[in-house]
Amino acid sequence: MTLSEKIGQMTQLDVTLINTTGEQRDIVLNEKKARNLILNHHIGSFLNGEAVEADVWFGFMDRLTRIAAEESRLGIPIIYGIDHIHGATYLSGSTVFPQGINLGATFEPEHARNTGRITALECADIGHHWCFSPVLDLGLNPQWPRFYETYGEDPLLASKLGTAFVGGMQENDEIAPYKVSATGKHFLGYSDPRSGWDRTPALIPMQQIHEFHRISFQHAIDAGLRTIMLNSGEVNGVPVHASHEIITGLLREEMGFDGVVVTDWDDVRKLMNFHFTAENFTEATYQSVMAGIDMCMTPLTLDFNKSMHELVESGRITEARIDESVRRILKLKFDLGLFENPFPRNDRFERIGRADSRAKALKAAQESIVLLKNEHDTLPLQSPKRIALFGPSAKSKRNLCGGWTIAWQGGEEERFPEKMHTIETALQKEFPDAEIVVFSDDVLAGLEQASSPKQKAFLKQLSAFDALIYAGGEEPYCEYVGNISDMRLPAFQRNAIALLGRAETPLILVLIQGRPRLITESIESTSAVLHAGLPGFEGAKAIATVLSGTVNPSGRLPFSYPKWPNHHLPYHHKQSNIYFFDPNVANQIQQGTKATALFPFGSGLSYCAFSYSGLSLKAENINGETRYTARVEVTNTGNRSGCETVLWFVSQAFGRISRPVKQLRHFEKVPLQAGETRECTFSFTPADFSYPDEIGQPVKPKGAFTLLTGRLETGFRV
Amino acid sequence: MTLSEKIGQMTQLDVTLINTTGEQRDIVLNEKKARNLILNHHIGSFLNGEAVEADVWFGFMDRLTRIAAEESRLGIPIIYGIDHIHGATYLSGSTVFPQGINLGATFEPEHARNTGRITALECADIGHHWCFSPVLDLGLNPQWPRFYETYGEDPLLASKLGTAFVGGMQENDEIAPYKVSATGKHFLGYSDPRSGWDRTPALIPMQQIHEFHRISFQHAIDAGLRTIMLNSGEVNGVPVHASHEIITGLLREEMGFDGVVVTDWDDVRKLMNFHFTAENFTEATYQSVMAGIDMCMTPLTLDFNKSMHELVESGRITEARIDESVRRILKLKFDLGLFENPFPRNDRFERIGRADSRAKALKAAQESIVLLKNEHDTLPLQSPKRIALFGPSAKSKRNLCGGWTIAWQGGEEERFPEKMHTIETALQKEFPDAEIVVFSDDVLAGLEQASSPKQKAFLKQLSAFDALIYAGGEEPYCEYVGNISDMRLPAFQRNAIALLGRAETPLILVLIQGRPRLITESIESTSAVLHAGLPGFEGAKAIATVLSGTVNPSGRLPFSYPKWPNHHLPYHHKQSNIYFFDPNVANQIQQGTKATALFPFGSGLSYCAFSYSGLSLKAENINGETRYTARVEVTNTGNRSGCETVLWFVSQAFGRISRPVKQLRHFEKVPLQAGETRECTFSFTPADFSYPDEIGQPVKPKGAFTLLTGRLETGFRV
Repeated sequence: MTLSEKIGQMTQLDVTLINTTGEQRDIVLNEKKARNLILNHHIGSFLNGEAVEADVWFGFMDRLTRIAAEESRLGIPIIYGIDHIHGATYLSGSTVFPQGINLGATFEPEHARNTGRITALECADIGHHWCFSPVLDLGLNPQWPRFYETYGEDPLLASKLGTAFVGGMQENDEIAPYKVSATGKHFLGYSDPRSGWDRTPALIPMQQIHEFHRISFQHAIDAGLRTIMLNSGEVNGVPVHASHEIITGLLREEMGFDGVVVTDWDDVRKLMNFHFTAENFTEATYQSVMAGIDMCMTPLTLDFNKSMHELVESGRITEARIDESVRRILKLKFDLGLFENPFPRNDRFERIGRADSRAKALKAAQESIVLLKNEHDTLPLQSPKRIALFGPSAKSKRNLCGGWTIAWQGGEEERFPEKMHTIETALQKEFPDAEIVVFSDDVLAGLEQASSPKQKAFLKQLSAFDALIYAGGEEPYCEYVGNISDMRLPAFQRNAIALLGRAETPLILVLIQGRPRLITESIESTSAVLHAGLPGFEGAKAIATVLSGTVNPSGRLPFSYPKWPNHHLPYHHKQSNIYFFDPNVANQIQQGTKATALFPFGSGLSYCAFSYSGLSLKAENINGETRYTARVEVTNTGNRSGCETVLWFVSQAFGRISRPVKQLRHFEKVPLQAGETRECTFSFTPADFSYPDEIGQPVKPKGAFTLLTGRLETGFRV
Repeated sequence: MTLSEKIGQMTQLDVTLINTTGEQRDIVLNEKKARNLILNHHIGSFLNGEAVEADVWFGFMDRLTRIAAEESRLGIPIIYGIDHIHGATYLSGSTVFPQGINLGATFEPEHARNTGRITALECADIGHHWCFSPVLDLGLNPQWPRFYETYGEDPLLASKLGTAFVGGMQENDEIAPYKVSATGKHFLGYSDPRSGWDRTPALIPMQQIHEFHRISFQHAIDAGLRTIMLNSGEVNGVPVHASHEIITGLLREEMGFDGVVVTDWDDVRKLMNFHFTAENFTEATYQSVMAGIDMCMTPLTLDFNKSMHELVESGRITEARIDESVRRILKLKFDLGLFENPFPRNDRFERIGRADSRAKALKAAQESIVLLKNEHDTLPLQSPKRIALFGPSAKSKRNLCGGWTIAWQGGEEERFPEKMHTIETALQKEFPDAEIVVFSDDVLAGLEQASSPKQKAFLKQLSAFDALIYAGGEEPYCEYVGNISDMRLPAFQRNAIALLGRAETPLILVLIQGRPRLITESIESTSAVLHAGLPGFEGAKAIATVLSGTVNPSGRLPFSYPKWPNHHLPYHHKQSNIYFFDPNVANQIQQGTKATALFPFGSGLSYCAFSYSGLSLKAENINGETRYTARVEVTNTGNRSGCETVLWFVSQAFGRISRPVKQLRHFEKVPLQAGETRECTFSFTPADFSYPDEIGQPVKPKGAFTLLTGRLETGFRV
């Protein structure tokens, strides 16, 4: 291979450079442009687009892949990467699952596996080889606009779901002869920017990186993850794209990753014009390549290729360094079978949006709905005759999906499938005998003034309804477009909820949102609260079936729902993170006696009740190692079937590096008929609870431990 | 010395163990208890108390010091430590200066020097040898309840003021034959707990410690600081009291500190019951002594002594290690002249609260008042006939002072000096011909409803006044008692301000507060805003003289005043910390074009105006090094005299570790008569702008730099 051919393999360009109009949604190849880039500049990878029909994608990818495979000197196939995030979201008619934060709420890895599997099933044939998912970042900062792409704040949950997603996508026999690569992103520390805004600096000491942020990536790598995308932001003063310590030291050498590392969008340039660690593009290129990137998503210019040539000519980058990356990229293409099967096919399109796939998306959505409040058994609704529906998500499809759906910021309303339900239509279908009346937000404006004649008349009107439903929260966004400076629900929604709370009819708040906006001021106005998150194409149906009771809710919060604007902690905070002052006891600090979460991690009600009993712990010595087995009996004490998520936490009394108050060590979702009891077990050795020191070396567990499940706990000593 | 005598020197016990009642304010010695602790347990240091008369302190200290010096085997003198924070605040009748955050607002090191000097002047004779001030932590987290004890968010400002304070206190010839030691606190990283609550974990990578947190301590150490108190919290997973890396590695070995390191209150025990790094007190003692502490403020038990004996007996701690600390403690006592002059004296008490000292406190308070808003020249008030005064601080003395004044949480109202002014009495004195009418907060309750007859009548009543003044903000607190979860002003104050803003008479908001509570929702209701902070005993007079125009305000914010509940940055943030999305320009990020501060660092209006012109920069080569001299002309273009604070910022275009957008490199406070022009200069070499890498080694500056002052800027290249 010539130097130019090698550098071309390291380059990934955007679809807009090879289509006819330069718009993302234009999936029509400009062959002249494509031929120039592939044949003259040897570009080895392209990315993105928006949702268009499968045959349009097929036509585009067929032409594109043939230029590379049939016309280029070496015939190296193209690899095409795309932002299919929660399903094949950039393909019309596809099955669109809930977003990551909802998958987290299911506590069921199978739903993540299905998301990965069905995404690949629907996109492999049209020539999409490489999906830029899953997000393995921990959802630690509820203000972060990419919070909804995570599986929540717990590393075990993110590991189990992330690994299942990767397995579902990468090991999918149905798509033979094709394979699709997943992407673990964004390595590393992206999800907890200090200021809450996207891509802003994070301050994460290495100990915390080892204990929290590394875990889900390590599991996915160990499970065969093929590619990793980097964090656009800086960690501890150095942008990750320029960090040899993180890319080469940690990811490659310590964690053993030997796949392809790709930059995020234009992030080499950002070293020059956003992070200002490099004075020009060539220096930026030098920094990122020497830090360890393999492929540069440049994505709109040939600057990377130009700079790479300069750097090789000036002797600053060796061809040996380039060979390392090219070898990894060619191996990826080889492993995916692209050399044997470089072209798409169009004879299995009936797979796209298949009924059984959509049923799986619906099941995932249903299990992701979290019932947070249900005063006086407001829910399920008992044969309502009239339902009043309010809020910005009452008639919206796009709001149910968030960003990365149809288009980057979420497609326009009219681009969503006609057959997809809104909350309004899903309610009508679920309650065929009821009248569903939708009130626009405009109706509520001007009614805020307490006890005004207008307000009285309006509230009287509402007494004719059996239920008021406010579908509020957020509109779609992603990345920095979703930056906010105030975590509260928007003022018009707070006012609307306060107003509706004055009515006699119970108010049900349904939260359609990508992150937990503060509802502390609003919750007293409600009788019931459903956290629906971003449940995807089947989301409205899922919500309606939970409201009706057709489905018994089983979702649990995979994050701590914040209570206050200026004090928030994940559940695995330190003891010293939270303490209270009792003014009646001089100089008396009380630790951890109150939560700062409005709803703690793991919250979620059901229409039935579960009881835990008989927690026991048995130790056996096996080959010189003590293995413990904990058992507990879980009973459905309600009068209908339901599903309980059994969470096993472990708490360590002392550690040289101060320990979290507790950590989730095992979880299991248990379906239980009314009155049924099942025994659940958790088996472990103390070594499972070692923790990393400042340089990531395991510290052996020692001292007293507490094992907690339900409201039961027991202790053991190591 | 016996082992027991050595361990006794390392122990500091609380006053409540040697007084008659066990109350902090009881400064009457129980000689039996004191004799037992000094003669049998060899205790070498005691601390604290509350404000009582000088002769009471004298009697107490005279007896206490005589027991040690005259009755103990070796006659080693006692060293007495006390929380005199902004003046001799635990002595009745003393001169009480503004708190640290106000001294920061003066941008005048002389006021900090006076605070240190006059504190020593007033407390040295009564036997207080060791004041637990200044706070050298950076005020980076406006939620932190000890924010007001800092000099603000800038390391240069904190260094200049901190060093001046230390010099004023430690090098005070007036107090001969005595000397008083200052305490630099709290080493290190205390001021930026992630959650905003006191003593909660901080995440501060070492690079940031070197670049920001270390600076003010390093300057004070280089200027002769004798003692250092540690941060009670954990940094990067390890409590500082157990961190060999921070105490021994950084403080002693890298920074060259050879004075005494004292723990904060009971912080060895907190390793056991708050941080949970040690399973019992003996292990906690081991961790902290091996990390490098010299003296343990235990302070309520003899557990430390007991544990130390055990640790020596078991061979885990050597006597050589103990000797190191004892040598430092004895050297401190020797350097302070305690061996020659161990006893207090009572023949110079006229020094306490002397008129010239109080005049200095008044000057400091006046220069610390920051005029943030002054619409339509609302201020100064022009011969007002009737002033309506509102708010919780209208008639309060204690609110003007904050915590650490008279008592830990601020003394009760009746313990403050009778002659001290409240805002009400100071206004009456400043406007002798005006009627000052104080409205209690109760009057405002129930009037919130817009356009109600009650509200209309009240607002009509207010039109008879020439000015409405709302004295709001916070009541005293310190440490964890001041933890808050919502940065906004309390709701009753927001409601009151909104109501008063509906009146025709202009509303002046005077903020008496220890940290910048959010006023974003309130500011539109006001015509003028004064940030008065915590101005101390002379504070009301200072506020009144600024309102009247007797004093032309010259204070500048030493911090960035937050605008939003969930997005706040110091002025020296990174470029990548702040950017905006323009929805009209697709995929276009705009950097740094809007501030997130309601009022940026350095904000502060005057009753006159200043203009900057003729910025020039000259380079000379001196001994092979380039020295630059910048000059600018500053003119008072108003019609009365005033004072301008000239701030010189430097901005570096690129750095391997991403650089702050700008850093304050020089400042100068310039008095200017009406029409007067002065030339201000700033001389530097590029080496002054080197920055620390991850391990604190200086990185040589390189590339383009911008020098900014006023609204002028010029560039140079290195």
